[in-house]
Amino acid sequence: MVEPATATQAAAPVMPQLKDELDIVIPTIRNLDFLEMWRPFFQPYHLIIVQDGDPSKTIKVPPGFDYELYNRNDINKILGPKASCISFKDSACRCFGYMVSKKKYIFTIDDDCFVAKDPSGKAVNALEQHIKNLLCPSTPFFFNTLYDPFREGADFVRGYPFSLREGVPTAVSHGLWLNIPDYDAPTQLVKPLERNTRFVDAVLTIPKGTLFPMCGMNLAFDRDLIGPAMYFGLMGDGQPIGRYDDMWAGWCIKVICDHLGLGVKTGLPYIYHSKASNPFVNLRKEYKGIFWQEEIIPFFQQAVLPKECTTVQKCYVELAKQVKEKLSKVDPYFDKLADAMVTWIKAWDELNPPTAGSVPNGKAA
Amino acid sequence: MVEPATATQAAAPVMPQLKDELDIVIPTIRNLDFLEMWRPFFQPYHLIIVQDGDPSKTIKVPPGFDYELYNRNDINKILGPKASCISFKDSACRCFGYMVSKKKYIFTIDDDCFVAKDPSGKAVNALEQHIKNLLCPSTPFFFNTLYDPFREGADFVRGYPFSLREGVPTAVSHGLWLNIPDYDAPTQLVKPLERNTRFVDAVLTIPKGTLFPMCGMNLAFDRDLIGPAMYFGLMGDGQPIGRYDDMWAGWCIKVICDHLGLGVKTGLPYIYHSKASNPFVNLRKEYKGIFWQEEIIPFFQQAVLPKECTTVQKCYVELAKQVKEKLSKVDPYFDKLADAMVTWIKAWDELNPPTAGSVPNGKAA
Repeated sequence: MVEPATATQAAAPVMPQLKDELDIVIPTIRNLDFLEMWRPFFQPYHLIIVQDGDPSKTIKVPPGFDYELYNRNDINKILGPKASCISFKDSACRCFGYMVSKKKYIFTIDDDCFVAKDPSGKAVNALEQHIKNLLCPSTPFFFNTLYDPFREGADFVRGYPFSLREGVPTAVSHGLWLNIPDYDAPTQLVKPLERNTRFVDAVLTIPKGTLFPMCGMNLAFDRDLIGPAMYFGLMGDGQPIGRYDDMWAGWCIKVICDHLGLGVKTGLPYIYHSKASNPFVNLRKEYKGIFWQEEIIPFFQQAVLPKECTTVQKCYVELAKQVKEKLSKVDPYFDKLADAMVTWIKAWDELNPPTAGSVPNGKAA
Repeated sequence: MVEPATATQAAAPVMPQLKDELDIVIPTIRNLDFLEMWRPFFQPYHLIIVQDGDPSKTIKVPPGFDYELYNRNDINKILGPKASCISFKDSACRCFGYMVSKKKYIFTIDDDCFVAKDPSGKAVNALEQHIKNLLCPSTPFFFNTLYDPFREGADFVRGYPFSLREGVPTAVSHGLWLNIPDYDAPTQLVKPLERNTRFVDAVLTIPKGTLFPMCGMNLAFDRDLIGPAMYFGLMGDGQPIGRYDDMWAGWCIKVICDHLGLGVKTGLPYIYHSKASNPFVNLRKEYKGIFWQEEIIPFFQQAVLPKECTTVQKCYVELAKQVKEKLSKVDPYFDKLADAMVTWIKAWDELNPPTAGSVPNGKAA
């Protein structure tokens, strides 16, 4: 049986990396232990908490943390009518935090995720591993059988073309979960007792042209490279689905990363996922998505972005256009979602006006 | 530091699986300890040893093993003029063993590979893991972030389309190496002391459309599904390159598996690779290949097989045609190799005539 690290194990001193370049974005914190457990790792960083429910309820943040908190009233005030693109009563609202951050890197984590232990019993510094993943290149054009060639003790194996060894910038680092695996409602119902106890000591690049199910529970990304595509869609209150916010973002960012020559890594770090959400509630949220994903995924697999799409924003608006054209026939929801995608980009650009020295996303300076 | 299992550890009783359906193919055995170390695992199976050098030298096989041994004289006698497609004085000759086998599955291993230990110290039954890999489906169309969804304790994660969960038949299982990693000569020269000590407890499907560097050191495959494409090319004596035999086979099988809807897995099992080959000798062998692979890989990445190619043989002959058309300009060697690919298929079909009940490769009965 896997167990999370104890507070003492987690409290080992940690060197804060990229302290001034990374924000931690957390949707509503319901669990008071959450920040205490992560204190040794998170305290050096700035937190952005986006409250997903009733704005009149107060979220208690223990002393010592540097944070800003946004509730629905704040979102409405800041975005005005464009606030319609931010989900209400759903953790998908976290993407508002990506938009208001001014940092280069974002780490986002759910409040039921605790510090995991590696097989030696040592507390896993998830943030440090995400930073490592983001700071070293990805290799999307050819598979390396010893996984990430940039890790200590590894390299490119025989037969790996030398011209591809420079790699490409890494835009996204997707971490995994010990204990409660990220299963859909049908699988939760069928396997209520399954726990993930397998610590796979690997990081790998998801190859170009391959889609994956991106989970928002333990996720980091380079905001400068891919931020405007990290939109978590319309979920929750007033919407026909839930639990597809991170999936939607994952399909979009992968198509755009492939187009712009950016990398997506998955694997380490693990967090300890403490609590399975209610499978019956989940089934209601996922129900339509289970049908829709059968058409959405082929749509994204076949999506081609024209050469003129040289920034993430241009790619994203083009994707929105294609969503409207090709997915609206699946359900009118996608028509609304396509509009929200465009609104999101407008809001992003308003809050993040291009600066004199800025370069198009996806391009090295 | 990683170490191989001791003979006592390796000697734990092993249930032979698929005893009558699997052959173990080994190029020349130079190391007398090799078979002794593997005895508990290999003894239930039939061995095919293909001697790569001087036919007058005798290979000693310890008592208790069921084996057949072929030297160059045997190959010439059996294949006649078609023996020209089998490499001489190079371990690439092992593919002759794939051709003469009558079994459904092949496991091939080098004589400097020993039994590895898992992190708990238990001897790894490599053959058993390969069989598990081959007997459960692959998932090449969408990436599963918890790796092989068919392993115990794992499943498809949230967002994995249900229509793709049946998977496809697995044709190839590519195992890895602890201790000496499979590096090319330049990397060996630069990092002479690097050892692979990381035991990654994962098996994964290499996605459709992604090529990988297939190593022949620790490899298993389903001969019925992909056998005729497992040709190790023209290497060694009289040829301008070496050490690209398995790479060549890997590029060919991947393109054909993708076309026919078959899966390729990599990861577990590990073997313990005891001895680095001489990097100076390797550099001489690899020299041209290092240049050529820069053109070969884009060729295979862009190769498209027409719909009419419904069997492995048809796919392979079509690939040979494309090699002749597009790679001969790289070096006249590829013209000769393309001819040898066609000869190989003719020889394969002679030794493996279609039977009344047989179905095209790549199709379920």
